[in-house]
Amino acid sequence: MTYSERPEGAMLTPRSARVAKIAALSGRSVRQREGRFRVEGPQAVRALLEREVREKSEGRSGILEELYLTDKARAAHPELEQLAARVSVRPRPATPEVIEAMVREQGHQSVAHPQGAIAVARSLELDWRDLLDDLGEGPCTIVVCERLQDPGNAGLIMRTADASGASAVFFSEGSADPLAPKVVRASAGSLFQVPFARKVPMDELLGELRTRGIATAATSPRGTQNLFAWAPPARLAWLMGNEAHGLSDDILEGADSRVAIPIFGNAESLNLATAATLCLFESARTRAGAR
Amino acid sequence: MTYSERPEGAMLTPRSARVAKIAALSGRSVRQREGRFRVEGPQAVRALLEREVREKSEGRSGILEELYLTDKARAAHPELEQLAARVSVRPRPATPEVIEAMVREQGHQSVAHPQGAIAVARSLELDWRDLLDDLGEGPCTIVVCERLQDPGNAGLIMRTADASGASAVFFSEGSADPLAPKVVRASAGSLFQVPFARKVPMDELLGELRTRGIATAATSPRGTQNLFAWAPPARLAWLMGNEAHGLSDDILEGADSRVAIPIFGNAESLNLATAATLCLFESARTRAGAR
Repeated sequence: MTYSERPEGAMLTPRSARVAKIAALSGRSVRQREGRFRVEGPQAVRALLEREVREKSEGRSGILEELYLTDKARAAHPELEQLAARVSVRPRPATPEVIEAMVREQGHQSVAHPQGAIAVARSLELDWRDLLDDLGEGPCTIVVCERLQDPGNAGLIMRTADASGASAVFFSEGSADPLAPKVVRASAGSLFQVPFARKVPMDELLGELRTRGIATAATSPRGTQNLFAWAPPARLAWLMGNEAHGLSDDILEGADSRVAIPIFGNAESLNLATAATLCLFESARTRAGAR
Repeated sequence: MTYSERPEGAMLTPRSARVAKIAALSGRSVRQREGRFRVEGPQAVRALLEREVREKSEGRSGILEELYLTDKARAAHPELEQLAARVSVRPRPATPEVIEAMVREQGHQSVAHPQGAIAVARSLELDWRDLLDDLGEGPCTIVVCERLQDPGNAGLIMRTADASGASAVFFSEGSADPLAPKVVRASAGSLFQVPFARKVPMDELLGELRTRGIATAATSPRGTQNLFAWAPPARLAWLMGNEAHGLSDDILEGADSRVAIPIFGNAESLNLATAATLCLFESARTRAGAR
């Protein structure tokens, strides 16, 4: 990223073509066509910059393309400029109105609060088979989301996967796009920590897991194992289904274990990210010997 | 609720005054002035109707004031009409456009999906001291939210409190309003299962907890107890703080225990509802002897 072609005098306005292009990244088809996505807010932008520093220190190229900060964000989060300097990037100044226009979604007023920090990055694309290869042969916990719909849940699952020390997250074909702005926001930076793959074909993935000796645990209210009376295997894939319909029947039936989370009160069910939290930390506790 | 004064022929339109009044319940001040709130979607409406049936069977008056269903919602969720009949309520028909107009928030296109079902109810107002009295003297787990901001988190905490068998949720002064539409939606009906109080003065509440022998556990990354190596007391209040700033210093320092959730990966922190999930289910497991 260089600024030699951008004269300092050409300040962006909310109506600049560049701003409209960034706003358009709210759309999945635009992200796919351009191979880029938008990163909003100081926390996510910092995580992206930290990833840039890591990648460059290991001789790999980064994904950052553009970085915009308001004066206020620059003052409130001086580490952003410092991290950017370590990868030879100079943030471009923007007014709050420009930042606001960058996150405006079609037909909506924005509900996002980017707090004066926006970046654009090239799509993180990992091949799901490479991701499996990277797991090696030791203990590992992974998450497989089948037809997960809600971007907030997708982001929360990334964040909890990260916090619980999980190795990777796989999103099936038909799942929410992990590069959607709401997912990036909800992941609170974990998108840049936990490797993930998207549009993964479920049948092939499940076959590969079997070949590699990674057990599968389907989470379902119809499960026969009580999560809290079960010791998750050292190499395990947690299978999480659709918010409304759960896992597909064949995936539920084909799993090595079917695990239910006990409901102690009157609630009909748990939120999907809540269920994932309990499962992932159960694996973490077992790995840590803390159970 | 009777319809005698509403002629059958007067179908609502998106521009009816009654529709505008329901849409206005998106605003906190309107909810407070009118003492009513809006309930959206078949799941939440069903939970409200189930509460009506329970209350009336015990000789208490309900809170339901108005109920609207599209033809499609009526066909997809026949139990709604059946439950309504048990409390002598006839749902009023509405077109999808009318339902859409009822959830439109000022300056926004709606992001809600009420799926053809809307109710209006009188505010659930429980006095926080009465709520403490109802806990009795046996084991109990409660949640206290101090300056919780995010409506999605507030709703998720209600849902998880319910699922984990907690007895009550207290929202401090300065917290999100639990009767806000987003909270009602995210609670997935648990708002009508778990008793809660709002605008609770923290100082007085903490004093009362002490008097009643209910221990307090502050959740904080700075905690000295490891959640997974700790046995929560049988009578416990989990104190959850603000999303950005955590608990106030004096509340954190004054708590009987300060509990941290171990982070096994690189995530900076857990989402607040995620943290509450792990704490509440830890209490549930201890109560159930499943640890």
